[in-house]
Amino acid sequence: MEKSVSVSDSDGSTFTPLVAIELAEDIKEEAVAWLLNRIKDKQQQAGADLLVDQLPREGLSDKKGNPNIFIVGATWLRLLYGAEEVGLVKEFNDGSMRGFTYANKENFKSFQGDGDGFLSIAECQYIIKHELDTLRAKEETHVPGYTQVKLYPGKSITRRMQSKGIMIQIFPLHMKEDLKRLSLSWYQKVKLSFQPLDDIRQYFGESLALYFGFLEYFTLALVPMAFFGIPYYLFDWESYDKYVLFAVFNLLWSTVILEVWKRNSASLAYGWGTLSRKKAFEEPRPGFHGVLGLNPVTGREEPVFPYTRRQLRMYLVSVPFVLLCLYLSLYVMMIYFDMEVWALGLHQEEPTLWSSLLLYVPSIIYAVVIEVMNRLYRYAAEFLTEWENHRLESSHQNHLILKVLVFNFLNCFASLFYIAFVMQDIVLLRQSLATLLITSQVLNQIMEAFLPYWLQKRRNKKVHTRNQKSLAEQELPLSEQVRLEADMNTYLGTFDDYLELFLLFGYVSLFSCVYPLAALLVVLNNVTEVYSDALKMCKVFKRPFSEPAADIGVWQLAFETMSVISVVTNCALIGMSPHMKAYFPESETQLILLVVAVEHVLLAFKFFLAFVIPDIPKQIQIKLARLEFQSLEALKKRKMLEVASGIPNKS
Amino acid sequence: MEKSVSVSDSDGSTFTPLVAIELAEDIKEEAVAWLLNRIKDKQQQAGADLLVDQLPREGLSDKKGNPNIFIVGATWLRLLYGAEEVGLVKEFNDGSMRGFTYANKENFKSFQGDGDGFLSIAECQYIIKHELDTLRAKEETHVPGYTQVKLYPGKSITRRMQSKGIMIQIFPLHMKEDLKRLSLSWYQKVKLSFQPLDDIRQYFGESLALYFGFLEYFTLALVPMAFFGIPYYLFDWESYDKYVLFAVFNLLWSTVILEVWKRNSASLAYGWGTLSRKKAFEEPRPGFHGVLGLNPVTGREEPVFPYTRRQLRMYLVSVPFVLLCLYLSLYVMMIYFDMEVWALGLHQEEPTLWSSLLLYVPSIIYAVVIEVMNRLYRYAAEFLTEWENHRLESSHQNHLILKVLVFNFLNCFASLFYIAFVMQDIVLLRQSLATLLITSQVLNQIMEAFLPYWLQKRRNKKVHTRNQKSLAEQELPLSEQVRLEADMNTYLGTFDDYLELFLLFGYVSLFSCVYPLAALLVVLNNVTEVYSDALKMCKVFKRPFSEPAADIGVWQLAFETMSVISVVTNCALIGMSPHMKAYFPESETQLILLVVAVEHVLLAFKFFLAFVIPDIPKQIQIKLARLEFQSLEALKKRKMLEVASGIPNKS
Repeated sequence: MEKSVSVSDSDGSTFTPLVAIELAEDIKEEAVAWLLNRIKDKQQQAGADLLVDQLPREGLSDKKGNPNIFIVGATWLRLLYGAEEVGLVKEFNDGSMRGFTYANKENFKSFQGDGDGFLSIAECQYIIKHELDTLRAKEETHVPGYTQVKLYPGKSITRRMQSKGIMIQIFPLHMKEDLKRLSLSWYQKVKLSFQPLDDIRQYFGESLALYFGFLEYFTLALVPMAFFGIPYYLFDWESYDKYVLFAVFNLLWSTVILEVWKRNSASLAYGWGTLSRKKAFEEPRPGFHGVLGLNPVTGREEPVFPYTRRQLRMYLVSVPFVLLCLYLSLYVMMIYFDMEVWALGLHQEEPTLWSSLLLYVPSIIYAVVIEVMNRLYRYAAEFLTEWENHRLESSHQNHLILKVLVFNFLNCFASLFYIAFVMQDIVLLRQSLATLLITSQVLNQIMEAFLPYWLQKRRNKKVHTRNQKSLAEQELPLSEQVRLEADMNTYLGTFDDYLELFLLFGYVSLFSCVYPLAALLVVLNNVTEVYSDALKMCKVFKRPFSEPAADIGVWQLAFETMSVISVVTNCALIGMSPHMKAYFPESETQLILLVVAVEHVLLAFKFFLAFVIPDIPKQIQIKLARLEFQSLEALKKRKMLEVASGIPNKS
Repeated sequence: MEKSVSVSDSDGSTFTPLVAIELAEDIKEEAVAWLLNRIKDKQQQAGADLLVDQLPREGLSDKKGNPNIFIVGATWLRLLYGAEEVGLVKEFNDGSMRGFTYANKENFKSFQGDGDGFLSIAECQYIIKHELDTLRAKEETHVPGYTQVKLYPGKSITRRMQSKGIMIQIFPLHMKEDLKRLSLSWYQKVKLSFQPLDDIRQYFGESLALYFGFLEYFTLALVPMAFFGIPYYLFDWESYDKYVLFAVFNLLWSTVILEVWKRNSASLAYGWGTLSRKKAFEEPRPGFHGVLGLNPVTGREEPVFPYTRRQLRMYLVSVPFVLLCLYLSLYVMMIYFDMEVWALGLHQEEPTLWSSLLLYVPSIIYAVVIEVMNRLYRYAAEFLTEWENHRLESSHQNHLILKVLVFNFLNCFASLFYIAFVMQDIVLLRQSLATLLITSQVLNQIMEAFLPYWLQKRRNKKVHTRNQKSLAEQELPLSEQVRLEADMNTYLGTFDDYLELFLLFGYVSLFSCVYPLAALLVVLNNVTEVYSDALKMCKVFKRPFSEPAADIGVWQLAFETMSVISVVTNCALIGMSPHMKAYFPESETQLILLVVAVEHVLLAFKFFLAFVIPDIPKQIQIKLARLEFQSLEALKKRKMLEVASGIPNKS
């Protein structure tokens, strides 16, 4: 752990700042004093037992900047106890992964006397966040100075203060040295090598590392498809009948890669200790509100919201709204097709270079419109899901993802489905696919990474100019650095990144048999995506808190569903090809029956494959079983001793 | 617990005999003495700490009967410790289900001072079996008197002795009084009421109770189908086009009932304490053999069998054999169709009453042949699976079930598929369905319950005649009773019973739209099945050891797969109907596309339903969550105390 930057506690002890808390600029002093005391209090007094100090105001021009920023750290002992409390799983001396306990600390691998390097900074920050989040009200009925901000015994103080706007944010600090090292090995040198996943996990936590792992895996898995696609593109552009073999390969391949990814992610998560980690009890999400009632699980008083009311909101408002949006999206699609016809008419009247370029205009406009609609809908979906008032973060996320997925799927693919199965125009399908794919890729990367990066850089420059220092040469003092980070945008989680991959996967798999080049384009996109996402994480956004994750969650299901749908679309496309029709000149019925039969066999085979390939590699299954066996044996031994000392002899 | 029958230990203490051990008739005395000592030894000396005595030979004519039968019991204390060891889950005073611990025994509901009525007899017997099974070799290298029967430290003694034939069997004893009570409330009075599932579970254990629960549920769930089927049968026999609605109802209904069953079984298993029970480490199954090696999980020496060798056996022998059998089965089917043609020819030449009866002969013969082939194949499958030498009982069972299911499915349904989709003869399909269904039902009930019951009764009569006592009036002495039970057939588990239900489900669902009466027939069959199965369990077979089970396991998957297949078959049948064809006179293609589309929508809806309906009822989820929360809180409190006493103050 880098200990170069350190500040002094009010007691005079120095500590490394790990997390920053930004309070409202006009917060009352008594509230600040009370909060700091609660944070510093020993655990016996129900405090968080952390070290905290106000950020020095050195170098801050007095007219600007929030003075109420505090930095939080902890002693090593405190962090180790915290590691046990949050249930971190670490490598044991015998090579197995075990839940860390303080009493047993010496037996963990890479544990040195004072614990240096044992916990990563991301883990320390996660522990501190957990301690701050679980800082609970005792007898206080409200935040001192704010009678309207009520507190309830046993409920989180920081969540309450955040939802009432007294606390603006809690965020982990970047570590300049570590970040420099990470950037260098990750994206600053263009080279052919894997990403430093373990380092990414050390710095950003498991959830993000799994995303980058999946991105890398997905890219590599597409390489065979891209490779096989090239000759088809080069030599056989117009005879797509030969794509049958390619399509069948794709279908099976996509099943296999998704199954193998599960195994891969299990391996990664095992090594990171999240696979065998026990889930803690899930608290209500910060935005959840309701009247006070009894939680049936904990028996504690907390806000409750009637189940039926949420159901009513979902089925009477959200579902109709989503359906309306889907209808709108289809309507826009029909307008696009009218534009296409119009452009084609113009081109056929006077075929010039300009009019042939014009042919691409409707597709480009449509792609832009889709992008805009997606973004607008996203806000609506977030609003609606918030309004549905789900109690748990996980169920909130799932409902949000479901809403957004359905709409994005329709928005991106409806036009392609229409072209493929209603118009049955394969040439146009191929053209649209290419245009959509390329436009959305370029747009995405600009909107997502380079534009924010440029904005960020401009902002940084302003700060630097104000301080008459050059950007690259010299280190900023801590106070400036923290203020800079506080102003950076907040990274909202991996949702959008996965969504992008999901749509790309759709482009590759749904119509693979008519446009084999899609895989190659997606591979190229993903390679740059790695760089732009890495840049985004390191330079554009505030550092996010690490999130423990054992898999990619609901996205695995989403990708698998897409791969099932792609079996249907590809079979249908193959059945429609004139080449296939030529095989059954006398009867179209036979052809259709054959295609349907093949489709059913492929689907059955897919499910069979998914069933047969174990989700967790044998080696890791054995390790998990060994651990469980050992703990059972230990329990039994303890019981035996109890029996030996406890049973009275029968006379 | 019924304590009327009791025997004396060698120490003079009396105990209730619960389990019997039958040793080989010619076993050496030193082996017997050693085994008895090991069973009686205290746990500190690695014994089982049970009470054991030789079965009295009173009333035994000296020329016949094995003298080496021993009866085993245990003190109450021992049973309570055992209950903790096997991880029984019992109702706590606050209404939740918790793992039983001896230290906490007073806080469990219905625990009285000496534990009377707290553990059911089946549980006591299960505990004793567990203790006997886990009686492990210490320093002994072989069974005394048998140098060839090697023992390995830490391996089960009784399993070894059983596989070497020195020990013939271990079985739990019937309790006359309990059995009489159970029979009375279960099957001896014909009445309209649910089965006494809790009593069945008390007497036979969870696995069997779940089977009977499923049988009952399945029967009730079929009642709506049967009900709707009757008017179709009465008024519309020849216009099966109207069955479309009926078929759609069936498809959705079957999905719903399977999902609801999961919830039902979770409720049952929660109340019985098996839902939240932790699984113990699985030991190798008794029949597993191999060369000595290191188990990667336990690190102990035990027989190991190379993974690749098993794979080779499976893929090079078992799979080809199964395929050959499937081919044979299809071949037999073709012969059946030739016979059908021949019989029809005869009938059309000279239509008499006899020749019209002759029309049914091929179907009946085929049904009998199918039954015979199924039974023969079953032996082969058991032999092959045994030879594949699976390490765990569960994987042995799964491979056996898979083999048997595939063959039975083809055997029972191939002819129907052929008639439906190759011959497209709906009248013949309906006829064959009826014949197959009725024949197999009648045959099954005779073969399965009444024939063995009759044989058993005859055998009992012989014993009784020898003793000049009448069967019903007087109780047999213990020694006779045990000997009688030892001679009864062993119940081999619920496999065959579930298989029968599975095939019946197939008859009902696969072709429901052409033969709506199937559901009614199956309901009638199931009602008698309850009685014959109950009779079988109480009178024909040896009492089986109770098996803890939280669900019906792989059968849930099998039933769900059948219901997916039935969507395909029913859609195809509807598409083939002349009525539907009349709607699309100009183009068959459109009809097929429509049918395929409807099929896909139905399948998607099925998966959606299965996804949306939670597998565990909300109430039970809350109870489980509450328990988990409480144990987490308790752990946290303990940790906090440790922290409070352990952390040195930072200076």
